[in-house]
Parts: sequence; structure tokens; C-alpha cells
Amino acid sequence: MPEFDAIRSLFLAKTVAVVGASASPEKTGYVILKNIIDGGYQGRVYPVNPKAESILGVPCVASLADIPGEVDLVVVVVPAKAVPEVMRQAAAKGVKGAVIISGGFREIGNAELEAEVIGIARDAGIAVIGPNCQGINYLPNRLCASWPLLDVEGPIAVISQSGTIAAAMGGWAADDAVGVTATVALGNNSGVSETALLEFFAGEEDVRVIALNVEGVRDGRLFMEVAKRAAAKKPVVVLKPGRTVKGAQAAQSHTKSIAGSDAVFDAMCRQIGLIRAPGLAEFYDDCKILGMLQKPAGKRLAILTSSGGSGILAADTAEDLGIELPALPEAAVQALREALPPQCVAANPLDLTGDATASRYGDALNVLKDYDCADCYLLIFGDPIEGAAEVAEAMKAKLNKPVIAAFLGGGEVQKEEVPKLHRAGIPAFPTPERAVGALAALLRKQ
Amino acid sequence: MPEFDAIRSLFLAKTVAVVGASASPEKTGYVILKNIIDGGYQGRVYPVNPKAESILGVPCVASLADIPGEVDLVVVVVPAKAVPEVMRQAAAKGVKGAVIISGGFREIGNAELEAEVIGIARDAGIAVIGPNCQGINYLPNRLCASWPLLDVEGPIAVISQSGTIAAAMGGWAADDAVGVTATVALGNNSGVSETALLEFFAGEEDVRVIALNVEGVRDGRLFMEVAKRAAAKKPVVVLKPGRTVKGAQAAQSHTKSIAGSDAVFDAMCRQIGLIRAPGLAEFYDDCKILGMLQKPAGKRLAILTSSGGSGILAADTAEDLGIELPALPEAAVQALREALPPQCVAANPLDLTGDATASRYGDALNVLKDYDCADCYLLIFGDPIEGAAEVAEAMKAKLNKPVIAAFLGGGEVQKEEVPKLHRAGIPAFPTPERAVGALAALLRKQ
Repeated sequence: MPEFDAIRSLFLAKTVAVVGASASPEKTGYVILKNIIDGGYQGRVYPVNPKAESILGVPCVASLADIPGEVDLVVVVVPAKAVPEVMRQAAAKGVKGAVIISGGFREIGNAELEAEVIGIARDAGIAVIGPNCQGINYLPNRLCASWPLLDVEGPIAVISQSGTIAAAMGGWAADDAVGVTATVALGNNSGVSETALLEFFAGEEDVRVIALNVEGVRDGRLFMEVAKRAAAKKPVVVLKPGRTVKGAQAAQSHTKSIAGSDAVFDAMCRQIGLIRAPGLAEFYDDCKILGMLQKPAGKRLAILTSSGGSGILAADTAEDLGIELPALPEAAVQALREALPPQCVAANPLDLTGDATASRYGDALNVLKDYDCADCYLLIFGDPIEGAAEVAEAMKAKLNKPVIAAFLGGGEVQKEEVPKLHRAGIPAFPTPERAVGALAALLRKQ
Repeated sequence: MPEFDAIRSLFLAKTVAVVGASASPEKTGYVILKNIIDGGYQGRVYPVNPKAESILGVPCVASLADIPGEVDLVVVVVPAKAVPEVMRQAAAKGVKGAVIISGGFREIGNAELEAEVIGIARDAGIAVIGPNCQGINYLPNRLCASWPLLDVEGPIAVISQSGTIAAAMGGWAADDAVGVTATVALGNNSGVSETALLEFFAGEEDVRVIALNVEGVRDGRLFMEVAKRAAAKKPVVVLKPGRTVKGAQAAQSHTKSIAGSDAVFDAMCRQIGLIRAPGLAEFYDDCKILGMLQKPAGKRLAILTSSGGSGILAADTAEDLGIELPALPEAAVQALREALPPQCVAANPLDLTGDATASRYGDALNVLKDYDCADCYLLIFGDPIEGAAEVAEAMKAKLNKPVIAAFLGGGEVQKEEVPKLHRAGIPAFPTPERAVGALAALLRKQ
């Protein structure tokens, strides 16, 4: 697919020009330039602004033509009516990709202006993201041509019609120390389509899961073909707002997407193996777990918890979602009774009780590792349990099964341990229900 | 109800003794003392420890009898077998309340020891919380006899069988700058019952909402009577884990609660006006919104958003939950078109689009305030929108209707603005769905 070379050049740009870079901190043309710099981009950056000497310490050029050597990517932040001229200059310069942040096109009825821009790009072989979009992040190239700044690299590639949803996904992943490979905001989605990006990320090794937020797709049949192939390679999680009558009306106003029947879309997802998230929190949770873990060999879950009440919430959710909570082998129960204090409940959930420290989880682990208790393990840490990440990592190594965590009620200790858990390859969730809900998504992996 | 005096004395204690205070930072007897001090408690504190001179700079006494003057509350952290003697000393000293953190009673089969402790307390008129519990917080008295430290005061009183769930609720409320009036962990729930606490908090003016997490209740008929009276005074949100077969089994292991039929409990909640939360995240969200806002006059919602995609998610959830999204009056639509840039979509949701700043929300407000558009307003802030809290507060003042917010994709700006929103009386949620879900709970207020 020749388009791939253009997409790759765009993401791996060695030289980026920001056309419409601004010295005013409240302007997008300033924020974008600042984030490219602050994100640690190692290539050459040229602010294009005929009125400024330099911005943020970087010397400006008056136009694209003034840049010495090749330019791989232009980020366009000028008013809509000036965009065709910028694209003509980009074509003359041999630019390979353009991220058009500028709005003022089809979304306000200026379809002709948009068609002109896209036509120039097509003739010149320039891959366009947008227009009217929130830009891109591509962490392998430390390229943050978007906002807010995202600088934590990880396994999730986000393709999103909504810039905010892309930013939220990237922000949550950064807070969790999980990170993203890329975020792409589609905006008016007139250039490189969601489908082309899906196929591209399916082939990228760094990407372990693809998060796809769309209100509609450009070519339904092509999308189905590509999505089926992509889903066979790695998990694709889909958030499609506009499920309801009111939601579909709003989607039509937003991106002119005709939602079609939600039931049909839902059936299509199941048929071709896409994992559909019911809402935004699940969209993130599902991507996180699928980006971090292999699918368990079966759906038997064992729960270890310091919080009896949280264990019950997890058990309720497991039963709701068809995840099994098998009884522990009788020999394991006996061994746990000997290894643990008398207040512990040697069952599944295994209640280590409220005075449990990390070492008590370790004691339980030393017993459980000798039995075939479950296909995956949920560790619930209630309260401030220091060393939680360390014991969870040890458990993961000894059991050689997927381990997930829920951490709650842990104050400052929790804020330190949760990123550590993620760095150790253990996805951690803020409630028992979200942990088990994400596990259900992992079990739907092909 | 004479029990109220005992409960009030316990929470408003002017002198607290920590029996079993420890100098070892990993011990609960150290953590409790430290949190009482760090929480800003202004009364007198006596660590009771015959082997230490002082702990954390506070002089120790060898026994309760050595404390000069009255002791209102003892916090007990000694081994179970020593608790009866501590209670006898407390009775001799005329102590009014005891929070028994120590475990090792009924939960491990020592029902007789527990009965002995409770018997001593009853004969001496001592109100007991626990045993085997995570303690109490009572912010009006800056008394944090629990862990982790909670020091943000607010409208929510949490009564929880699970210490972790109490700690999680308090921690989330602190992070949000919303705060709690109190958290009480019931533990074995053998002293002051959940029902007595419910009635007590229903009568406390500071408390705007009661969060009740129980796996079972001590006396079902009495609970129903009291809960009905309480719910008539202020909202009571209930989380009852153990909905499913596996969950109910786990609940029975945890607190010997016989769950009974979940459908019966659910029907009872509806009948007497309790608001049942389906899970832990909703438990917190519902308490937050009910603690902060009055019920809207009707269920017409208007949504203002900088993120089209987020607006659609909110619209989907509103339709799911029976919340109306009326069309805006035609005159308002015309006025909005004049007041806002052309890319904005003058509808409901009102899409202010991705380049919206706080001032654009203000421009929209200046139009909307002149029309009867809705009974409540949801402001969705996507991306880093500085001044979000300020414009939301202005909107709340001018519209004189409940205003809620969702903030996402906002990076560091969001982390600053969300507590500001809460301080301005505007509950803010991390996703559009959670915001609208909480609004549905607010609409169920009596």
C-alpha cells in the first residue's frame, strides 16, 4: 500500500515546519510549536512566520521556500482561506505530509475550500491529516504536534475523530505510566482515512492495541475488510458514539456522519472481531489491558484482596460478565490456612483482611504457585499498601499467568504504587468493577 | 434517642486515648496516632503505652487510669485478648466511646470474646464502633482516627462495612476538594449499628448526603423505618455488594451477612426512597452530586461542549437514562449564531468546537441566560481550557440552575481546574457518561 510510505514519512518526519507559528502563548500556533520542542523532538523544526525573528528561541523563516533542504511534514495553523496557498508551497517544496489543524472548512459549509486543499495534496502526493483537527502525536519520533503535551510512550495507538477523546486517552495513559505509541485526531477526516491509519498501525510492531473512536467511516465496505485483517493481527477497540437517536443527531451535526443502525454496527463488530467499548472509561480500560497483557488460557479468575468488600464487588462483576471464580483446590485451602493469620478467609476471593501488608500477599503467593488455581489473578490492594507493585511483580513472575490489580483507598501510597504496577506490566484500575470489566475485554481477544 | 448523645460524644471527643499506641511506624498503633496529630485534632491526645516515654513527641501514659481528667474516646489497637481489660478500665474511667480497631473476634470464630467486650461496653454505656474496623474520621472535630489521613471536610457522611471503601470515598472526595463530614468503618458492626449511625447523620446539619455501604443490616425492620425517615430528610445512597450468587457467598465469608434476595432489597430501596448505586464509582459520583446540588426543577438538560465527540457520548447517556435534551428555542439559536464563530453548532448539545476558550462559554452564556432552555446545564470542557471554573461559576450564578461539568483531555490545566470547579459548587466528572449518570441520580432525589 503506497499510502503507507506517506503515512510513515509523516510520523517519522526528520524536518517539521509549523506554518502559522505564533509568539502569543494563547494561540494554537504557539502551543503546537512549544509541544514539539517540549516533547523532545530530535529533528529540525522551523517556525514559519514572516513577522517574527524567532519564537521560543527557534529562528523563524518567512515561508516554506526559505527552509534549506527537505521538509517532511508541515503543521498548518493558518486561517482556512490561506491554507490552499500553503499547500501549493508545500507541494513545490516536495513536502510528504501535512497536519492541518486549521478549521473553517466543510464543518462550516466551506466544502469547496476543503476540496481544493485535498485536491492540491492528492496531486502532490501529500498525506493529509485533518483538516480541522487537533493534530498528531507519534512517540517513537518524540513528535507531539498536538495539545496537551504527551510524552509517555506505550503500546496504544489512538485514532480518533475527536481530538479531546484522543487527548484524554493519551493523558490517562501518561498518568498511568502506560503511554501511547501515537494519537491521531481525524478532524474532518478528508485526507488519510481512519481505515488507512487502522491498517498502518496494524502493521506497526510497537503498537499492541489500536483504539479507534469514530462516529462514522468513509467507506464501510473497505473499512470492514481492513478492520477484519487488522483485528486478526492485534486487538482493535472501538468507541462509536451516536448509539441513540439524540446521540446520532449530535453526531450528524458534529462530523456529518450518518450513524446508520447501531445494532448493525454492533453485529459487524462482533462478526469481524472488533472489541466495542460501551463508553469512554471502558475504551481506555480495555485498551490498557489489551496493550499490556496476553489473553489468559481460560476464564478462571482468582482474587486476592485486603478488602473483603472490594472482593465482593469484584465477584459480583465477574458473575455478571461470565468470568468464573472457581473454588480453590482443597490442598491449597489447607496450605493457605497454615500460611496465613486466622482472620484470613482461604477461599476465592481470598480475603487477606484489612491489616494485610505486601508480605502477606507474598505468603499467599508462595502457596498458590504450587496449585493450578486459575488462569488469571486479580490483586485488590485496599488501603495504603507499600510494596504492592513489588509483590505483584513477583507474583506475575512465579505464576506465569496474567496478573491485574485494583488499587483503592490507598492515599499517597496508591499514587506511588499505581505507576509502578504499570511499569511492571500489571494493569491497575481504580475500582474492582473496572478491573474485572477490563478482564472481560481481554478474554474477548482473538 | 439517648444513643445519639453517646455517638455525638464519640465524634466530638475533647480527649482521646490511643490504647496500644506504638513507636513503630509500620504498626497501626503508630499510624492512628500520627493521623490524629496530622489531621489537626485540637483536643488532648494520650498515647497509652506502658513501655514508651513518648511517641511522635507526645508523652505516653501507662494506662487509662493515669490520664488526668475525663476521657471521651478510646481508640483501641491492642491484641484482641487484651481488649476486655481495656474496656473494663475504660468503664472505670467513665469513657463515653470506643473505636475498636483490633481484630481477632467474631470474624475468626471468637464470638464469645466479642460478646464479652460488647457486654462490658453496654453495661458501662460506652458507644462502640467495631470491633475489627478501620476507625472513624469526623472532620468537624478534625479527628482522623483511621487511615489513610483524610483532612478535607465536606458534605458526605460515609457509613461503610468496608474500611477500604470508606477510605476510597474519603480519598476521592479529598482529591476533588469536595471532602467528607465523616467516615465510619463498621467492621464487625457489633456496637453502634449502621442504622443508629444513619439516623444520627440524618439529623446532622453539616451532612448533605449519606453514603451507606452495607453487606447486610442488623435489624431489617428497624433499618427500613429509620432509612425511610432519613431519606425523607436528605439523600441516602446505598452500595450493597453481594448482588450475585458468587458475590453473596463472598459477603457471607466476609461479614457473616446473609444477603437475602437482591431483588427484594432493590425493591425496598425504591419503596422507601434510597438511591441505590450499581457500583463503587457510581456510589462516589452519586454522593458527590447529591452532596453539592439541589434537585433540578425538571429533567431538561442543555449541554455546552468544546468537544463534539464528548457531547455525543453525553447525549447517548442522557437518552439511555431518560433525561431530556430539548431543542433550543429558535430565538436562542439565532442569537447564538450571531454571538459565536461560524464553526459552532447552535443546537443541544451546543458545540463550541475545539478552539473554544473559556470566554466562548461566556459568550454562549450571555445568550442562554435570556431563554428558558433547560432545567440544568452540563458544561463539557475538552482539552486544556484555562478559566473553566471561573466561567462555570459565572454561568451558575446567572442561570440560577444546577450546573455540572465534565473535564477531560485537559492535561495539567484540568488538574488545576477540577478542584476549583468543586470549590465553586460545580461537581465535575472525568467522562461525559459519568456526569450524566450522576445527574440521573440527582433527578431521583426526593
